Amino acid sequence: MKITEVDPFYFQMSEITSAADGTQDTLLVRIRTDKGFEGWGECDASPLVSIAAYCCPMSHGNIINIRKTLIGETLNDTSDVVRLSEKVLRNGLDIQQIQHAYSGAEIALWDIIGKKFDKPVYRLLAEMFDVSDTLHPKLPYASVLFGETSDATYQIAVNLREQGFRAAKFGWGPMGKFGEENDIALVRAAREGMGSAAQIMIDAGVVWGTDYNTAYQRAEAFAQFSPTWLEEPLAPDAIEAYSSLTGMNPAVNIAAGEGSSTFRMAEDLILHGGIQYVQIDTGRIGGILPSFHVRQLAEKHGVQYVNHTFKSHLSLAAALHVFTTNPDFNLLEFPAAGSELSQRLVKNPFQIDNDGMVRAKEQPGLGVDVDIEAIRQYLTQVDIKVADETVFQTAEL
Amino acid sequence: MKITEVDPFYFQMSEITSAADGTQDTLLVRIRTDKGFEGWGECDASPLVSIAAYCCPMSHGNIINIRKTLIGETLNDTSDVVRLSEKVLRNGLDIQQIQHAYSGAEIALWDIIGKKFDKPVYRLLAEMFDVSDTLHPKLPYASVLFGETSDATYQIAVNLREQGFRAAKFGWGPMGKFGEENDIALVRAAREGMGSAAQIMIDAGVVWGTDYNTAYQRAEAFAQFSPTWLEEPLAPDAIEAYSSLTGMNPAVNIAAGEGSSTFRMAEDLILHGGIQYVQIDTGRIGGILPSFHVRQLAEKHGVQYVNHTFKSHLSLAAALHVFTTNPDFNLLEFPAAGSELSQRLVKNPFQIDNDGMVRAKEQPGLGVDVDIEAIRQYLTQVDIKVADETVFQTAEL
Repeated sequence: MKITEVDPFYFQMSEITSAADGTQDTLLVRIRTDKGFEGWGECDASPLVSIAAYCCPMSHGNIINIRKTLIGETLNDTSDVVRLSEKVLRNGLDIQQIQHAYSGAEIALWDIIGKKFDKPVYRLLAEMFDVSDTLHPKLPYASVLFGETSDATYQIAVNLREQGFRAAKFGWGPMGKFGEENDIALVRAAREGMGSAAQIMIDAGVVWGTDYNTAYQRAEAFAQFSPTWLEEPLAPDAIEAYSSLTGMNPAVNIAAGEGSSTFRMAEDLILHGGIQYVQIDTGRIGGILPSFHVRQLAEKHGVQYVNHTFKSHLSLAAALHVFTTNPDFNLLEFPAAGSELSQRLVKNPFQIDNDGMVRAKEQPGLGVDVDIEAIRQYLTQVDIKVADETVFQTAEL
Repeated sequence: MKITEVDPFYFQMSEITSAADGTQDTLLVRIRTDKGFEGWGECDASPLVSIAAYCCPMSHGNIINIRKTLIGETLNDTSDVVRLSEKVLRNGLDIQQIQHAYSGAEIALWDIIGKKFDKPVYRLLAEMFDVSDTLHPKLPYASVLFGETSDATYQIAVNLREQGFRAAKFGWGPMGKFGEENDIALVRAAREGMGSAAQIMIDAGVVWGTDYNTAYQRAEAFAQFSPTWLEEPLAPDAIEAYSSLTGMNPAVNIAAGEGSSTFRMAEDLILHGGIQYVQIDTGRIGGILPSFHVRQLAEKHGVQYVNHTFKSHLSLAAALHVFTTNPDFNLLEFPAAGSELSQRLVKNPFQIDNDGMVRAKEQPGLGVDVDIEAIRQYLTQVDIKVADETVFQTAEL
């Protein structure tokens, strides 16, 4: 079959704040074929900048937009996804935004192939990479922001525990901004609110930049509260600083990787950063295929692969297919405090099962359906003209 | 003083082809202050995607556009350039395109500070980093595309020699696409056309992807023509493949780095790729400051720093200030076959002096002036509306 439509859609809440809450807007990509198949994917990226990568005029052979590359192409099986991904990245070699933007389309291609063959994406991947296709449940950890104070953080943690979460990650907000004592109080509050049996994770939100000494001191100070990891204490590409930090063997494991916009950035962290957990956002790194390559690299190097997901359950579905077949990669970032937009985005969100675990969907493709009518109110019209020619206009939803 | 205006301008030729010719369009950034200073910079990037990074609506605290970050800010000396660069990159942490887009603005900030203190940018850098401020001339190498055949390539080389070039780089086009024999014929033609006394460089244009064995075989086969380097035989982020290639000690030195969109990508190539020449585009990596950091890293590791410049002499000026004070970094990529747009873009282009060398400009700032009237005909109007609100409209030139 042929690809006939490639349409990015920008959705946003009516009010957007500077909080580190990635669910305030989103970019979905819908792909349709001449045989009536439709697939969806979500990017964790700037919607407008990414839309520009779908419609920018050609600059030369290394700046050709995603739509132009995909429309009219043959899409029959997973080998076409590989071929088209190579073509998009080759044509967009000099578009820095290309992986962020393409992620949604790549995920939509997998969704279509799964629907065509009546298989969930994780089974397509298992066949393609010749790995086990047994689905393993994951322990979801609620992913929330720290409260502004330790008291507020304690209350957030108590609420999560009452909701039944056995694991929770607290991040950003005041962490790292008001000195060691405050940082420790925040982590203590998270631990006390969640209780001693729970897993807690601490996300420092790149706050110490390249200062690996401070990051080391905090890791040592937080160790008394037994967090599963300390996440992103340093800037995403401060790999030499990560190497210095992990070389000091801090008493808490180090996690990073959500900023990986390319496979190499994740590979770099694994090979040279010395991290113990690699966190990949399928909506940033270019989709499911490069995420799976990182999973394989993590397996090879004894690093635990974890999803990074701070968008809707459409992103969560894509993320989960990548690593559900590996029983050792047992943790799942589970967005627990998103905007109305992100909470209403799919008709069939993931549930936490009675055993406290989350399972990948067995339905064909991603296994979740976008709830068009529920999110229509958030659709944001975009019009881009270059030299009086309309190069982009939001398609009909 | 305060920054009052930050305006990206998109210029393009009336016809754009898929040839690897980066001069067919361009993005200039103009910054103005309340004290009447004006600076300019050029990006080697997709104009439309980069413009989106100047105007995209806020998504959250990590997606805040460049204009919003810069306008109203204080700009008095070079420390402000450092501070503002950190702020732009921090606010744009989740905008993948941020370095490509910001490069033009960063260069414009240096231009303004130079004009304010009546100093060329290279002197500002020498003061800031406490290095020698002696200007060293560079040997320009013409940077051209291979002809479609070896005969055509020979003719291009003869023309360059007749123009007085003592060095020339041939790249892209048919290289790597029609087998070893043709590749060798192309390099032979370049050598014979330029003569035995000239330096020639071969740019493979990332054609062998991750196939370091073929890259090695070609390097060995090309050695008989004594090229100064073999450039980008592999994909920009195939660092492990570069490591394998350079580990085999090919008889020709390996150059790479133009695809470095971040400091880390260049650092990664130097520390882990084993390259002998690192080629940095100030219009992609985020401007002059990160380029200078790569220069310093190259000095530390015995790697030769070279500019990558395939735009106008505005880009060349920015590139040259970064490394003109290091006598060992003696080669300068000198665009020699650009579009009319790129050739007319500045009023005072660089000349090759009687000794065959090119010297950085001693005038304040970048030392070149944009020829507004000459390029006005190439100005391309851009209008971007989000939810019926105009978020970008090309400013008055």
